[in-house]
Amino acid sequence: MRIAYQGEPGAFSEAASRQIDAGGELLPCREFEDVFEAVKAGRADYGVLPIENSIGGSIHRNFDLLQQNDLPIVGETEVPVVHHLLALPGTTLENVRRIYSHPQGLAQCERFLRTLVNVEIIASYDTAGSAKMIAADRMADAAAIASARAGEVFGLQTLRAGIQDYDHNTTRFLVIGRRPLSDAPHDKTSIVFTLPNEPGALFKALSTFALRNIDLTKLESRPMPSRKWEYLFYMDLKASPDEPACARALSHLGEIAPMLRILGSYASSKPAGRNDAAASASASSLETPA
Amino acid sequence: MRIAYQGEPGAFSEAASRQIDAGGELLPCREFEDVFEAVKAGRADYGVLPIENSIGGSIHRNFDLLQQNDLPIVGETEVPVVHHLLALPGTTLENVRRIYSHPQGLAQCERFLRTLVNVEIIASYDTAGSAKMIAADRMADAAAIASARAGEVFGLQTLRAGIQDYDHNTTRFLVIGRRPLSDAPHDKTSIVFTLPNEPGALFKALSTFALRNIDLTKLESRPMPSRKWEYLFYMDLKASPDEPACARALSHLGEIAPMLRILGSYASSKPAGRNDAAASASASSLETPA
Repeated sequence: MRIAYQGEPGAFSEAASRQIDAGGELLPCREFEDVFEAVKAGRADYGVLPIENSIGGSIHRNFDLLQQNDLPIVGETEVPVVHHLLALPGTTLENVRRIYSHPQGLAQCERFLRTLVNVEIIASYDTAGSAKMIAADRMADAAAIASARAGEVFGLQTLRAGIQDYDHNTTRFLVIGRRPLSDAPHDKTSIVFTLPNEPGALFKALSTFALRNIDLTKLESRPMPSRKWEYLFYMDLKASPDEPACARALSHLGEIAPMLRILGSYASSKPAGRNDAAASASASSLETPA
Repeated sequence: MRIAYQGEPGAFSEAASRQIDAGGELLPCREFEDVFEAVKAGRADYGVLPIENSIGGSIHRNFDLLQQNDLPIVGETEVPVVHHLLALPGTTLENVRRIYSHPQGLAQCERFLRTLVNVEIIASYDTAGSAKMIAADRMADAAAIASARAGEVFGLQTLRAGIQDYDHNTTRFLVIGRRPLSDAPHDKTSIVFTLPNEPGALFKALSTFALRNIDLTKLESRPMPSRKWEYLFYMDLKASPDEPACARALSHLGEIAPMLRILGSYASSKPAGRNDAAASASASSLETPA
């Protein structure tokens, strides 16, 4: 199995790809667009894309790309985000004058960064890429915020471990591909739709699911570039179109929405420790059944 | 009147501040946080913050800061975004090897940027700040994407004008402050709320407005950092709590929402050319009355 992801080895997307297939061949890509292209062109069987972080929120670019590209979502996985401060061997925290990371990585370690003085915080292309740059350019007065694995890959040492502000920092990744990822039953569906300019349109759209007790786990709005202050709505449902109630709700939504597309139906992620009842009760959502 | 904004002179936030008060004293700030601090400390009467772009979407950091700070929204304004490619006098497009701008500025000129070859595209702190850097460092092989006014402020020439992908590229700004901005009637209200983990909770929340024919112009969800995969909801209503129906809807929402806060009630923006019926019919929203 060949899996494309965005970033350098050591990126959290690489960890997500390993969760999909521990022994798969991995194809690092420079941009999210390149992940879609790799799957379209058949250079990869699947692509892995971060879609939402439990602290930073949605990765909106990937919502836009899912809409623009015609590749179904076939799975999802969650990766705990643990950030480390990485530097060349010999560099101490006192030597560090610049810290590089992706803007999300910097934002997720804000409390730690605020404890530092006389250090410039620089937004860069990605977390693991910052570690790579410090190693390649032998930057003795700089550090990167990235994963422990990025430190291993690029030969950096850990100056401070686990510097993220929140313990439950988690990123959810989607898997795109032309073939099913597994034969596990589909219990989750992602859709995108537009609404007419009518009062109560969103209320009516939500009614199609609420009146059938179908749980929403995510609602995201994104601008329609072609129409000022109009929106596309992305929604995740805890149901499959194979279930009659969900099929009817989608058909009902189709009566209301000028555009409706099913982005994919797939097995929801069951991260370790979330399979038991207690854990899944704490894995809350927009509207978790009580 | 003293108005704080984020960015350098020539930033679109400066243009928004001028729209609030053409003759006011302006206080440029480095970070969005500094705008809130300037108003809190009384160094500025008002702060101007970008909240949403019609192409790029919401500026989520400012939603988070509105929730974290206790400063009411007292107004809004919209600024058309026209991007120019700016360089030192004497630099031609053929000389340009690097282009700097804020990631949103780069994203909004993607079509133009794709026509260039052998040019490195570099994300930077802000649009006008990129123009300032090119001028200060005399970078003869670089250009910035920023406003015409940034070019004037920093003595750069325009290599290409109006390079944004979409004509209707517009940014909406909020005004925060302790005192009312004008005595115009309030016809818009911004709120933030949480929802219980129950099926149909969001549907019930929207029903409080839909069943009273109150128009929503914006719904945004942001993660609650303290609770994994739970959300805060931000909503704009085309109504004022001074109207009995809106007051009752907010009271009804208060029965459903564990947390509900009114971020502000204010006069909606009436940009030039949108006061007539034809223009306001085209200024659509989530749910514009037909």
